[in-house]
Amino acid sequence: MTEPLLAQVLRTVDGKDDRLNEIVTSLITHLHAFVDEVRPTEEEWLAGLDFLVETGQEWCGEHRNEFILLSDMLGLTTAVDDVNHHGPANMTPSSVEGPFHSPAPTRELGAWISFGPERDRGVPTVVHGRVLDCDGTPLPGAVIDLWQANDTGLYDSQDESQESGNLRALLTTDENGGYWFRTIRPSSYPVPTDGTAGRLLKAIGRHPMRPAHLHVRVEAPGHRPLTTHVFLDEDPYLDSDAAFAVKPELVCHPVHREVADDRWELDTPYEEIEFDIRLAPTNWTEENAK
Amino acid sequence: MTEPLLAQVLRTVDGKDDRLNEIVTSLITHLHAFVDEVRPTEEEWLAGLDFLVETGQEWCGEHRNEFILLSDMLGLTTAVDDVNHHGPANMTPSSVEGPFHSPAPTRELGAWISFGPERDRGVPTVVHGRVLDCDGTPLPGAVIDLWQANDTGLYDSQDESQESGNLRALLTTDENGGYWFRTIRPSSYPVPTDGTAGRLLKAIGRHPMRPAHLHVRVEAPGHRPLTTHVFLDEDPYLDSDAAFAVKPELVCHPVHREVADDRWELDTPYEEIEFDIRLAPTNWTEENAK
Repeated sequence: MTEPLLAQVLRTVDGKDDRLNEIVTSLITHLHAFVDEVRPTEEEWLAGLDFLVETGQEWCGEHRNEFILLSDMLGLTTAVDDVNHHGPANMTPSSVEGPFHSPAPTRELGAWISFGPERDRGVPTVVHGRVLDCDGTPLPGAVIDLWQANDTGLYDSQDESQESGNLRALLTTDENGGYWFRTIRPSSYPVPTDGTAGRLLKAIGRHPMRPAHLHVRVEAPGHRPLTTHVFLDEDPYLDSDAAFAVKPELVCHPVHREVADDRWELDTPYEEIEFDIRLAPTNWTEENAK
Repeated sequence: MTEPLLAQVLRTVDGKDDRLNEIVTSLITHLHAFVDEVRPTEEEWLAGLDFLVETGQEWCGEHRNEFILLSDMLGLTTAVDDVNHHGPANMTPSSVEGPFHSPAPTRELGAWISFGPERDRGVPTVVHGRVLDCDGTPLPGAVIDLWQANDTGLYDSQDESQESGNLRALLTTDENGGYWFRTIRPSSYPVPTDGTAGRLLKAIGRHPMRPAHLHVRVEAPGHRPLTTHVFLDEDPYLDSDAAFAVKPELVCHPVHREVADDRWELDTPYEEIEFDIRLAPTNWTEENAK
């Protein structure tokens, strides 16, 4: 009696690192299940391996990592984010960091964070809210790290017309946990489509668009850091984000204001976004929450 | 109510190629199941993606394909071979081709196929048998493509001491379906261990060895081509082939002969391997076999 192939393979996984053994065992099991299910021809299997070779050789480098992009496009990055960031029910949910984070300049509350040519073209937008704990207590001194694309969907690192640090900021909440800043409305944009991820999206009939969003990362003493997105409703791609990062709690409603407003120091019509952020305590666990 | 993540991702798979949709749907489903099962930390996930980047960038090129090696080492190549090569119960089972096939010179039956320095060092070995259909009818004029490593485990393409074509042959069976050739006994050998596949094997506590074997590919009119291995029993790695290519029907028993033999034109002690090969008819299918 011959031992089944999968059992033969799994029997060989016996390293010193129990966690690595666990990961490799699970990966082998699921890849064999994939082969059993789709029964690839040898040509199909080699085409798949060629796809991996090209992804590594042609589309990964200092400024690009196509395997991360593929992970994003297949919803795997969000899946990994989900298993790592459970929290209290009223915590602001986390969302994937994406590839465009970089160190931001410290700015004052209320600062304009748009300095490039988009400042003249874009829709003036004020974003404000509070950082709170999950009981609603304000968290003064929380640090908010912000980054966003401009009105054409480009980050400073992708666009020569923007200086480094444009549309980025580190803000610290005031004594009421409040924050605010002025910017231009971000735009939806496509992920890079010239590589293997773009070819895969096209082949399976998908668009490469991400709905307009701001990225935020928030830290406050005694609380778990949170990395998430703020999305804008009425975006045509909100229900089909190429990176599957949208969660209902992260979608806000920009209110159009026709009249200039002294409070926000804006002398033109503008849009107003209010978004509160609720952090979980450092010591929160699934167990002690029950 | 939020749609579960996996359902969101699968809903986007809607290309024109039904087969590609099927493959991608299955792959996404199994990769999400893997994430749900092992719940990787973000560091673990990124380490996995880095492993893929390095595999493509550092270990794939004109003469090497580490993704194929990984597929072999995880038993996936054998799994793909298995789903593609069902046949009648008494058919000789197929086995993976491996990376060392290249066009072989045509040789006469009985030829010595060893011309390098291994001819003086190695164990003289005669290999003979018949190519048959699954009813036992001999198949004259069948073409057997042979390739093997030398006594130190190296193929001609890996070893400057061997001329191109050494330990390779194209033979044609005689009127009784018979074949024979003279060679030296092959040796077990390690797969390349300097790349990511070798690192993975080491981390999960596995050796990189393949048991000694000959590669054969057989073609006969009216029959399905067969690519397979011939293994030698008593090899210490027979139960732990790094490529999971061993099947009981492919293991033969070399018989030691102390006396020279006129029949095989051998004037020293030698080993004798007898191996018959049974091919499936071209029109065999799982359905018409029932």
